[in-house]
Amino acid sequence: MDLLKIKSPEDIKGLNENELEILCDQLREALIKKLAAHGGHVGPNLGVVEATVALHYVFNAPKDEIVYDVSHQSYVHKMLTGRIGAFIDPARYDEVTGYTSPHESPYDLFEVGHTSTSISLATGLAKARDLQGRTNNVIAFIGDASLGGGMALEALNYAPELGTNFIIVLNDNQRSIAENHGELYDHLAELRNSNGQSENNIFKALGYDYIYVEEGNDLRQLIKAFNKVKDSDHVVVVHINTMKGMGLPVAEAHKENFHFSAPFDVKTGAPLHIDVSEGYDDMFAKRMISLMQENKNVVTMTAGTPGAIGFSEDRRNICGKQFIDVGIAEQDCITMSAGLAKGGATPVVGVVSTFLQRAYDQLSHDIAINDLPVVIVDFYGGVFAMNDVTHLGIFDVAMVSNIPNITMISATNAEEYLAMIDWAVKEANKPIVIRTPTGQMRNSNRKVETDFLRYEVVESGEEVAIIAEGALFHNAAEAAQILKAKGLNPTLINPRILSAVDEACLDSLKDYKHVVTVDNGILNGGFGQKVAGYLAKYGTKVTCLGLKNEFMDRFDVKDVLLKNNLTPEQIADVVLSE
Amino acid sequence: MDLLKIKSPEDIKGLNENELEILCDQLREALIKKLAAHGGHVGPNLGVVEATVALHYVFNAPKDEIVYDVSHQSYVHKMLTGRIGAFIDPARYDEVTGYTSPHESPYDLFEVGHTSTSISLATGLAKARDLQGRTNNVIAFIGDASLGGGMALEALNYAPELGTNFIIVLNDNQRSIAENHGELYDHLAELRNSNGQSENNIFKALGYDYIYVEEGNDLRQLIKAFNKVKDSDHVVVVHINTMKGMGLPVAEAHKENFHFSAPFDVKTGAPLHIDVSEGYDDMFAKRMISLMQENKNVVTMTAGTPGAIGFSEDRRNICGKQFIDVGIAEQDCITMSAGLAKGGATPVVGVVSTFLQRAYDQLSHDIAINDLPVVIVDFYGGVFAMNDVTHLGIFDVAMVSNIPNITMISATNAEEYLAMIDWAVKEANKPIVIRTPTGQMRNSNRKVETDFLRYEVVESGEEVAIIAEGALFHNAAEAAQILKAKGLNPTLINPRILSAVDEACLDSLKDYKHVVTVDNGILNGGFGQKVAGYLAKYGTKVTCLGLKNEFMDRFDVKDVLLKNNLTPEQIADVVLSE
Repeated sequence: MDLLKIKSPEDIKGLNENELEILCDQLREALIKKLAAHGGHVGPNLGVVEATVALHYVFNAPKDEIVYDVSHQSYVHKMLTGRIGAFIDPARYDEVTGYTSPHESPYDLFEVGHTSTSISLATGLAKARDLQGRTNNVIAFIGDASLGGGMALEALNYAPELGTNFIIVLNDNQRSIAENHGELYDHLAELRNSNGQSENNIFKALGYDYIYVEEGNDLRQLIKAFNKVKDSDHVVVVHINTMKGMGLPVAEAHKENFHFSAPFDVKTGAPLHIDVSEGYDDMFAKRMISLMQENKNVVTMTAGTPGAIGFSEDRRNICGKQFIDVGIAEQDCITMSAGLAKGGATPVVGVVSTFLQRAYDQLSHDIAINDLPVVIVDFYGGVFAMNDVTHLGIFDVAMVSNIPNITMISATNAEEYLAMIDWAVKEANKPIVIRTPTGQMRNSNRKVETDFLRYEVVESGEEVAIIAEGALFHNAAEAAQILKAKGLNPTLINPRILSAVDEACLDSLKDYKHVVTVDNGILNGGFGQKVAGYLAKYGTKVTCLGLKNEFMDRFDVKDVLLKNNLTPEQIADVVLSE
Repeated sequence: MDLLKIKSPEDIKGLNENELEILCDQLREALIKKLAAHGGHVGPNLGVVEATVALHYVFNAPKDEIVYDVSHQSYVHKMLTGRIGAFIDPARYDEVTGYTSPHESPYDLFEVGHTSTSISLATGLAKARDLQGRTNNVIAFIGDASLGGGMALEALNYAPELGTNFIIVLNDNQRSIAENHGELYDHLAELRNSNGQSENNIFKALGYDYIYVEEGNDLRQLIKAFNKVKDSDHVVVVHINTMKGMGLPVAEAHKENFHFSAPFDVKTGAPLHIDVSEGYDDMFAKRMISLMQENKNVVTMTAGTPGAIGFSEDRRNICGKQFIDVGIAEQDCITMSAGLAKGGATPVVGVVSTFLQRAYDQLSHDIAINDLPVVIVDFYGGVFAMNDVTHLGIFDVAMVSNIPNITMISATNAEEYLAMIDWAVKEANKPIVIRTPTGQMRNSNRKVETDFLRYEVVESGEEVAIIAEGALFHNAAEAAQILKAKGLNPTLINPRILSAVDEACLDSLKDYKHVVTVDNGILNGGFGQKVAGYLAKYGTKVTCLGLKNEFMDRFDVKDVLLKNNLTPEQIADVVLSE
């Protein structure tokens, strides 16, 4: 059919199964074309073309409510719900986000981007439905990797208590981004290998009806299974066995690399834009491998995102038992690290800033109260990192730096970063969070000053000072040059430590005319307000710059800097303002 | 034996089983005597007398490492590990904390107080042991209620991957504080009812060896089971069926009330100190019941602590389907509330401040990014609440108030509190967190000003101002009186909103000589630093008062106020300081 004619799922309900299969081929073809040209979540979406078509064919969204876990696999859903243009017309590729978004469509119920929330969200929808006496189906669509996350298991446990219609579609593609971890996955294999017949069945143990679909990319089998559970009056799991990357040979063959990919050549899988520069992730991984080889008690840990911290499969293999991936289980990862430290090992957890949010309590209790020497290396913090609303890196400082006993330090360049890692692993002997720089790779133009618990006065001046952290330090350094050109002699400070103020250093500024702080993240709860809170008692004029406390989606970083007075010119102007 | 002679577990290893049984009776008797006179976690500890004796008889702590989940059931462990005096000599009752504490004893591995962490901590210990080539046993001792928490399930899933010695003792007393929720508990019942023989077995499904002990208060059965798994070379679950409150009839009969109890009469169970005053928890529950009766779409939610928010069993029964307890699963609770709000219901989550830490990411993503009208009523926040290091209420403002889209408001008295609840439920239509007052119950001496998004100027003065929130507002009000007596005319402000500053109000203070803020919690990340961050640009002198950013254990609130300049006299002095 003409894909452009699909305005809503109603438009596919009249098709027969043959026609639906042709539709799947068309959708997949269009998807591959866009993914190759534009980049995106390749494997997850290609694996669920048939499942998504079958869902929308059998159920009646938006009356029937479908919640996609993580929602990075919702591209076909978007194609079927009024947004086909954004997948067919290159000029419109950026019209849709990579996740479900209620701002885009009433078929999208939630902004989602972290894993393991779909069952909880769906139980809420189901309970609201029951309170109001409605009768629609509620469906949580969740991948095998997400199911291992603690909150998914909490909800899996609770949902049967609803006692009403509740359908979980378990999209089992036998993968996390990398390989799965945990015994649940052996159990899912047991279920697959027995064609769903194994006596042992965790879902049945928890009170669910259970249906297994061996060919999860076979539209007819899926339609049959979904029809069977439609309007169910109780909880049921439909376990579908799908193939990640289905239909694109390079994605089927290289599942980890094609979980998410930048634009690529469809035949070879080679990236269209080759970037040979070393990133901070590579730098981290190489340094950790060297530290682990030096000391067999050092371990590197991740919760399901080894690639994001530079640990490609070959690097993981080098590390053997010194590399731990617990799967998508940030809470377990952080608390396990506390156990490792207590047991005399030196755990270094590499974590994407936004996912660290899953483990606030574990940071606070298991690491901080116990004051255990865990090193956490925080990636993609600040404004130069990911810009999806569900993956922002601008909240980490406010979250982490106010927990007692945790020392949070932020690097401005490569040499400083590596020195921080070395210091944290070998010397600090307390909980340390290191914020990895983002944005352009920088090298140091000065000797690394390694007393990271004190501010570094990079340029000693008078009357006005700028204290700026992380990647925005460089904007402040440029601002200082602008001020010098105007005849001022500004003091320029790289604070490094964000979890406490350097009182002696700040005392030296108390009679300054103006002190400006620059947070690479939200203003609220950041280091700048700590500086203001300290200096304001002297009546020192302090202006705190940083990001407004708001969720932004797919922003242009230049716009955001401009809007928040964070360009070098603007910082200089703020310093000069009365 | 003479209990006072027990200096370490070595002292019980020479006993035969008869003697050990007598020892259990003696320990239980001593425990009941202390609990009745002193209060504490009654049910959890009485239920594990035999299990703890058996553990220490069979295993060799501290070489063998035992991690107690929550650790509120570690009293007998403390009695056997050098701290018997604190359980026998009334003058020494306060020598021990109510939880494991490495500061007290090398037999206590971690400060723990939140649930569901033991398996993760133990996997860390086991991995560290393996890296170092040690051969001790590692044991996680976890209750059935804690097992339902997401991070326990994450770790239960991961632990088998260790492939080495790892023992989980599942202490199944068939209870949370209140009743359990979730299908896992039907499954545990199935295992108990089949004497551990059910074909369906979630632990076996996850790759564990499994042993069931029907008489979990029978010392001999426990010793036999523990001997069987000692030095295991793989993962094993020992599922023991115990009775909460065992040996104290009132505690066996009233399990919820005797989970934790203040001093009580051993025979009748009646509290020794009768307090007939209504608390904020009762006030909340009564108001919620009325709001739920008025509107069937309003629901009250808890994650396993209904009693702490005023919902006793009879009140829960009144509410029927409008009261939701998901069990100890804060993440699921918060995210389910988002689903409820999306589905058109009005969810009100009552949560103990320290436990809200478990759901930071869910607050941020599922509620805040989605901007859904969930009401969270935060209990036991501030310095007047619980004083165990693992249950502090001084971090909630720093954690919650910096999340965009969430409006956090704090009440200073009963009338204001109820008005906030009414407003949040009926009018706000956005995410609201209400901080419940703590400390002495106060009534309003003025009309409640219901524009909670703006600061309330309670007394309009000149030159100096105090802005103080929550329970510490009353200290500030007293400070204002002191200042008046000295001829000053201070402005006194109750901010209510903590997540944003009232810019217009602060602008009116910019030429003041001195503005003093008072946070009822840690200074860092609190509302005072936001005020300083805003006013410092004018060069207004601002002093931020609040608590130092540290973990405190079993503190005396008067000492803490004094140490942090928070008594009325001290606040007045700070206002006057140059």
